[in-house]
Amino acid sequence: MTKHLVFDVNETLLDVSALDPLFERLFGGSATRQEWFLTLQENWLTATIVDDYRPFGELAKSALAMVGRRRNIKVTSADEQSLINGIMTLPAHEDVAEALELLNSKGFTLAALTNSTLTAARKQLASAQLSVYFEHILSVDEVQRYKPAAEPYRMAARRLGVGTGEITMVAAHAWDITGAAAAGCRTAFVARPGKVINPAGAQPDYFGKTVLEVAQKL
Amino acid sequence: MTKHLVFDVNETLLDVSALDPLFERLFGGSATRQEWFLTLQENWLTATIVDDYRPFGELAKSALAMVGRRRNIKVTSADEQSLINGIMTLPAHEDVAEALELLNSKGFTLAALTNSTLTAARKQLASAQLSVYFEHILSVDEVQRYKPAAEPYRMAARRLGVGTGEITMVAAHAWDITGAAAAGCRTAFVARPGKVINPAGAQPDYFGKTVLEVAQKL
Repeated sequence: MTKHLVFDVNETLLDVSALDPLFERLFGGSATRQEWFLTLQENWLTATIVDDYRPFGELAKSALAMVGRRRNIKVTSADEQSLINGIMTLPAHEDVAEALELLNSKGFTLAALTNSTLTAARKQLASAQLSVYFEHILSVDEVQRYKPAAEPYRMAARRLGVGTGEITMVAAHAWDITGAAAAGCRTAFVARPGKVINPAGAQPDYFGKTVLEVAQKL
Repeated sequence: MTKHLVFDVNETLLDVSALDPLFERLFGGSATRQEWFLTLQENWLTATIVDDYRPFGELAKSALAMVGRRRNIKVTSADEQSLINGIMTLPAHEDVAEALELLNSKGFTLAALTNSTLTAARKQLASAQLSVYFEHILSVDEVQRYKPAAEPYRMAARRLGVGTGEITMVAAHAWDITGAAAAGCRTAFVARPGKVINPAGAQPDYFGKTVLEVAQKL
């Protein structure tokens, strides 16, 4: 059993639904928050395929503009700044602190590996009062390739001083599980509301509805 | 001005909203059709990044299963077959035949380049009565890499016997425009309902709300 756990941050540890009021104010409905996240996701997957890396915050803002364009609603730079401020101060899902505490006490080494920039990731985990649990806070920014490309997972393994086969990636996204598995990592899927694994893709080694449920199985 | 046009098929030429009744029957609402297409898109972008190519029909079916899992609704193999049958018989958007006719008469060479398999693409264009306009029907299946990776655009240019700089990719998806531009093609964006360009990405050389509008500008 590996003792090195690498956590995805947005949606896995932090609750992105805290942005709903912003989307309600801008577009009159919080369902647009999911549309924004899927558009952002499309943009970073595309950026990775065409090898034209741009920082997460820039992609987050352009995805917001795209949601606006679909509705003929102008997104101002003040709206963009509200989005960025919101991302920086997302709360942790309520099970997370207890889960990380438990894992620390069981002797696991914990790292965070996010598509956010390093500066953003540090601010996010500090704001959510989770920094204390992590030995490493890592960003794809360092390798300029977004997950699910192999480079970020390999970089995380290097930083932890082990091979990719010795880390377990914990994530709420099917693409992150697929990418980590393809890079040779073990995987744990967190089935946050609305998140499902791809039945035709790599199946996770561990599964739970929360990080706490996963932590109890490790 | 280049005389070689390469068309995306699903959503650009063919009207995927014809699948709405299937999604209404399965999930009680046609908004799930967009969710399915975005999930399918996530799956092929991920497959391309981790270099694990699987045919479009297989990804379309697993995306349908994922939409079902999110709602605790079991998708049967009969439902999957209904989806595939629906994809094979999508109607053309109403402006398309006139647009392709016009482009043929102006002396353009037309090719289709799709993420569908070659067999599917031939059936789809025949069913929509569009095959007659195309000199080449091409699928990413041949290079086992989905658009927006560079390989499909390069393959299309080779088949047309020109450089990528001499073809114009016509598509209703921001990622297709981004991928084609990154591969050195000229681009034309078709702003089908709900489709917008990424303001922070490559901007298209031509723009229209329909293929006919684009055709009139070429």
